[in-house]
Amino acid sequence: MSRFLVSKYSDLEAYTPGEQPKDRKYIKLNTNESPYPPSEGVLRAVNSSQAELLRLYPDPTCSQLKGKIAGLYGLAPENVFISNSSDDMLNIAFTAFASDEKPAYYPDITYGFYKVFSKLHGTKAKIFPLREDFTIDPQNYMGLAEGLIVITNPNAPTGLALSPEDIKKICLGSPDCIVIADEAYVDFGAESCIKLIGELENLIVCRTYSKSMSMAGARLGFAFASKEIIQDLEKIKYSTNPYSVNRITLAAGEAAIDDIEYYRDNCRKIIETREKTSQELKKLGFELTDSKANFIFAKSDKLPGKLIFEKLREKGILVRRFEQDRISEYLRITVGSPEEMQALTEALKDILSE
Amino acid sequence: MSRFLVSKYSDLEAYTPGEQPKDRKYIKLNTNESPYPPSEGVLRAVNSSQAELLRLYPDPTCSQLKGKIAGLYGLAPENVFISNSSDDMLNIAFTAFASDEKPAYYPDITYGFYKVFSKLHGTKAKIFPLREDFTIDPQNYMGLAEGLIVITNPNAPTGLALSPEDIKKICLGSPDCIVIADEAYVDFGAESCIKLIGELENLIVCRTYSKSMSMAGARLGFAFASKEIIQDLEKIKYSTNPYSVNRITLAAGEAAIDDIEYYRDNCRKIIETREKTSQELKKLGFELTDSKANFIFAKSDKLPGKLIFEKLREKGILVRRFEQDRISEYLRITVGSPEEMQALTEALKDILSE
Repeated sequence: MSRFLVSKYSDLEAYTPGEQPKDRKYIKLNTNESPYPPSEGVLRAVNSSQAELLRLYPDPTCSQLKGKIAGLYGLAPENVFISNSSDDMLNIAFTAFASDEKPAYYPDITYGFYKVFSKLHGTKAKIFPLREDFTIDPQNYMGLAEGLIVITNPNAPTGLALSPEDIKKICLGSPDCIVIADEAYVDFGAESCIKLIGELENLIVCRTYSKSMSMAGARLGFAFASKEIIQDLEKIKYSTNPYSVNRITLAAGEAAIDDIEYYRDNCRKIIETREKTSQELKKLGFELTDSKANFIFAKSDKLPGKLIFEKLREKGILVRRFEQDRISEYLRITVGSPEEMQALTEALKDILSE
Repeated sequence: MSRFLVSKYSDLEAYTPGEQPKDRKYIKLNTNESPYPPSEGVLRAVNSSQAELLRLYPDPTCSQLKGKIAGLYGLAPENVFISNSSDDMLNIAFTAFASDEKPAYYPDITYGFYKVFSKLHGTKAKIFPLREDFTIDPQNYMGLAEGLIVITNPNAPTGLALSPEDIKKICLGSPDCIVIADEAYVDFGAESCIKLIGELENLIVCRTYSKSMSMAGARLGFAFASKEIIQDLEKIKYSTNPYSVNRITLAAGEAAIDDIEYYRDNCRKIIETREKTSQELKKLGFELTDSKANFIFAKSDKLPGKLIFEKLREKGILVRRFEQDRISEYLRITVGSPEEMQALTEALKDILSE
């Protein structure tokens, strides 16, 4: 730290991403990436990015991509926000809708970045513990003073989903709060709240290309909300980094929408692999949540989570583990290809029988 | 605007980028892009971005690119910061080093985004008028209370440069301020302050791939500073959007460094075109600053700036004009290819003789 840093950031602790070690080749089940490549159309779009295009600034309004996304989800372009990843969108939303006077509200066990955004933006965070079974109690989020409610849905790392009806109850129950439904994982079996846009004044639905669209490397997020909320988000975007989404990512994002069936097929495969692997893990004595995401959240009845984590790593398999109360025995295991999950199951069998 | 927006942003006015109209094909001399394409190596790097890579998150530490940039400029990787454009870097620096108690200091005529960042971050801006001849008076920036001094060098839209000696005087004269030398345009004939990194505790030198590296469409910026300042910038980066630079841009950025001689040649060509066009404009009665950037800043002795701007637009040539005191008669004209500048000169001849 330098002596010049604004003092309120001196004890800010940045988000810790899942490790990306380079010491050997790993089966990477630790950062919820897709095991399947982007579509042929996306690869063509990337490869046909021409010199002429790269020397010129991208369109800061992302109007073509907005139009494509609006069309796919049956909304108007004015209801769509485009960002350089969903983290970028969340940071912009915290800027716009949370402050020292407008708290952020979220569960104790959820995406770890909300805590960082709260600290960064000087927001008093009000944190509601999940129920004993890791479900969110919608009642916690009713009657709240103006601020920002953030619900990852399905939640991470539990994989458990609220219904759109519950999200609607929260929106209506706290009408002076913005409610973000962060649907990063929704394509793997949960029900989206997009259909509520238009009906609810205070709802933002946030999405990403990183999981179901196999484009974590390209950095692209989007969100749906009322025209007025989108204007607020864009005011902040255009006041921080107007051209944050580059030309190649925009082209790739458009091409992916054209190939949406390919991605839907991938999601079906991932769901199938998740269910199959879940059965295998249960046979090995693991306790699992009913995950609707592209990861499994599991605890062994025999060995500590930390030990399994380390033994898997020794065997060349990376999973994610959180040093946090109530979940420190759990592993969050990304659903990879069937072959990768087979290797995982075999490795766990070995570890448990050692 | 929605009723949920944090009130301090209600009168925030976002930065207005140069227009990107699509109604016809224009000669685009309004956003300081390069007339030359990225190098062959960059195109190869983009085209060889493989499926496997795009589905995976990029390296948030950008370590390979950091190493290449450090090597090119003779510094250590720990002195290098990588960002999604130099706007992103500036926004992060305003976050880290300016606040309601730490003012931002900058000239009245400079990059328009500083004003937006000041408002966004609740910083009291202290603005120093340029001298009558549009030069910066380094004395203005001596003995300042702790805060953030931002000097575009060469300045925009004037093109006038301070020497590294003057920047050094400012750093030493206001030792409790961070001093950013924003060198977006330095490759077109000014002298860089990079050699002062290591010597001066409070200097940040900020650079971009958008101008001399022909990659405005890929969004890539970088900065040099002490190890401690880089740590501060990274703390903010990793607390807002850790993976902000995508895989393809990282690969392109690395390849561009390998092809640095190509870009240096382009800069030489652009300088030559600038000087030739400047002579032509002087013959037409224009008054010009001694620009060291990839643009010309010029005022006609015959017609109002607004009229020329509009007439050029009608003729299919876009330039930039600022509705601001002291410079509203001036045009900022990006140095394009020799053919484009020939077309500009011809168009101006026509307009002046109409």
